[in-house]
Amino acid sequence: MSKNEDLHGSAPDKSSVALLLIDVIGDFEFEDGDKIFKHALPMAKKIAALKKRAKKHKVPVVYINDNFGKWQSDFKKLLEHALDEKVRGSKIAEILKPDDDDYFVLKPKHSGFYSTTLDTLLAYLGTKTLIFTGISTDICVLFTANDAYMRDFNLVIPSDCVAAQDTKQSAKTLKYMEKVLKADVRPSSKIDFGKLKRK
Amino acid sequence: MSKNEDLHGSAPDKSSVALLLIDVIGDFEFEDGDKIFKHALPMAKKIAALKKRAKKHKVPVVYINDNFGKWQSDFKKLLEHALDEKVRGSKIAEILKPDDDDYFVLKPKHSGFYSTTLDTLLAYLGTKTLIFTGISTDICVLFTANDAYMRDFNLVIPSDCVAAQDTKQSAKTLKYMEKVLKADVRPSSKIDFGKLKRK
Amino acid sequence: MSKNEDLHGSAPDKSSVALLLIDVIGDFEFEDGDKIFKHALPMAKKIAALKKRAKKHKVPVVYINDNFGKWQSDFKKLLEHALDEKVRGSKIAEILKPDDDDYFVLKPKHSGFYSTTLDTLLAYLGTKTLIFTGISTDICVLFTANDAYMRDFNLVIPSDCVAAQDTKQSAKTLKYMEKVLKADVRPSSKIDFGKLKRK
Amino acid sequence: MSKNEDLHGSAPDKSSVALLLIDVIGDFEFEDGDKIFKHALPMAKKIAALKKRAKKHKVPVVYINDNFGKWQSDFKKLLEHALDEKVRGSKIAEILKPDDDDYFVLKPKHSGFYSTTLDTLLAYLGTKTLIFTGISTDICVLFTANDAYMRDFNLVIPSDCVAAQDTKQSAKTLKYMEKVLKADVRPSSKIDFGKLKRK
Repeated sequence: MSKNEDLHGSAPDKSSVALLLIDVIGDFEFEDGDKIFKHALPMAKKIAALKKRAKKHKVPVVYINDNFGKWQSDFKKLLEHALDEKVRGSKIAEILKPDDDDYFVLKPKHSGFYSTTLDTLLAYLGTKTLIFTGISTDICVLFTANDAYMRDFNLVIPSDCVAAQDTKQSAKTLKYMEKVLKADVRPSSKIDFGKLKRK
Repeated sequence: MSKNEDLHGSAPDKSSVALLLIDVIGDFEFEDGDKIFKHALPMAKKIAALKKRAKKHKVPVVYINDNFGKWQSDFKKLLEHALDEKVRGSKIAEILKPDDDDYFVLKPKHSGFYSTTLDTLLAYLGTKTLIFTGISTDICVLFTANDAYMRDFNLVIPSDCVAAQDTKQSAKTLKYMEKVLKADVRPSSKIDFGKLKRK
Repeated sequence: MSKNEDLHGSAPDKSSVALLLIDVIGDFEFEDGDKIFKHALPMAKKIAALKKRAKKHKVPVVYINDNFGKWQSDFKKLLEHALDEKVRGSKIAEILKPDDDDYFVLKPKHSGFYSTTLDTLLAYLGTKTLIFTGISTDICVLFTANDAYMRDFNLVIPSDCVAAQDTKQSAKTLKYMEKVLKADVRPSSKIDFGKLKRK
Repeated sequence: MSKNEDLHGSAPDKSSVALLLIDVIGDFEFEDGDKIFKHALPMAKKIAALKKRAKKHKVPVVYINDNFGKWQSDFKKLLEHALDEKVRGSKIAEILKPDDDDYFVLKPKHSGFYSTTLDTLLAYLGTKTLIFTGISTDICVLFTANDAYMRDFNLVIPSDCVAAQDTKQSAKTLKYMEKVLKADVRPSSKIDFGKLKRK
């Protein structure tokens, strides 16, 4: 069966630019979760502002998140869990709660491209430029960025919209991605969506 | 982030056999949906009985379903839509409603292996033998079965648990899968889970 | 390291159409190899004529072949073995000997897309339409065609340029590919490269 | 066609450990090729010694190399080119010339796993532990190592068997791979093949 019916008429069908939010929805209740949360909370506010501007420019937003609960969970259940006031991550989940027309990709491993539909989704959107945000800079963001570079995407990784437990490691990884992956790492306020879309 | 918390302690972690349900959840409100529904309804009853026996043997059940609504939908939303009494597929969705510990894989295209987590999920389960059920025999079942054969799985495709719009085409495809993919196509009542697991 | 130097300046860099030759180079010395060889020899002559016309239109030619000898072999060694007069396949290898500017893809399994560079090669060529030729219609040609259809290529499968051991099975599979994969199965003499390229 | 004939009876069929040589065969005649060559030459000698010991333990050796010449080249042609005394890389190619029973994987991009047969080859070998050697530490070695980690391989990356243009960047990347990918980075002389195989 391949007859897809469109439940979301308002979704952008085509966009040369897409905004990725990596592993922002979660409870942050794992070991050392407080250490990364400290950096993730201010980051989340920056991402929220960037997302607002992205949607004005009809740039699609893709949540890429770990597949909690052994693949049985869906994103809704994950979101409900993260929004529970008793968990640390609820403050971030509140700020970055997805809209109805946002896309979700559940990933089983570190890279958003590995064993997921991301490749196919971006091919359908016609996307050439990816804006990376989320955590953590040196693991899931880096793995996903490497895979995107290998697939010939242009990379934008606003330095204030990624975070890691260790800020030095985060800064080093950003430098790596700027040098090797040719990523544009300007802060989110300097991102010009109009220009990116004309690229 | 890769710290998966286990929300579903009851889920089977390891099983050499898995039961796949392909595209059984849907509204069947597409063109010629009535023609395939006619064959899909008796098939659904056979699958329900087979699934019941599978769960007694702790064989995990994986729903593989089209990604309706341009990837924004999750499986829960899809299920709610399919359960709506106003749509044709609700009778089948009622019979085959997933349990809390069943697995879901949303596929963007015809094969359950293409651009999905299925490969990774089956590697984690340690599965070697796949039981195929669902629709339609000559398209999504065939595409997924071909991909499974190429990955060296043993294939069981009970002849009364697959269906297509054209019954002749369904029978021909079953013969093809028996001959070329070495599939065991015995009817579902003849499946011996204990034996399959010892294989 | 990603600095590719171009050893083959004459190679077409971009082409919306590509011609695939599947498993035509081999010794045909396996069990029942004589049965398929009988049909493969006249097929090879048709493919040779089609290839000649393809090259006039600067349509790139891609040999997709089994990875003999446990991945240590390269295509050159495989070709030398197939050209050896003592093996049955030498007559076909002689007719279909690759040119210096043809592409080679070694596949470990049935589909030319599985665990190979074919996806990346076709993306670089910018190919949208694939012409399928080779053996056998119901296995490697079908598996590769299914995968191509799933990737949204247009399929052309000239009925006189594919073969299988069982001619009835070959004809049935062609019908399937025409109906389900929307393949154009007209005989090779009716293929209009100019038209295909303008598509 | 899937009837593989075995041209190399001496090849190890199964091995829990494999030795990877990444991008060691090449002319090194690209921009700044002299800078990396300076570090690659001593590295090559270390790899040669390690490879000798690996073969004594029947550990298979896999050359993973860029796909020069737009996919038309095979590894033999690439090797001949690299062995030409007029090119800088010939000294390294002479030291690391592959044996008849070594495996070759041509990669179109940075990671040895991307769009290649590596996954399938390692599945057939039954490999769980990968020893990484070659260039450059911060690009093709890192990309391939990330992909291996994501696929649950154990990683051994002997610090004296990898090299990059910038030695500081190489050292930083090694540290990253030790910390994040849990790689064992002990020097090659300390590698105990017997122990690795019993793991």
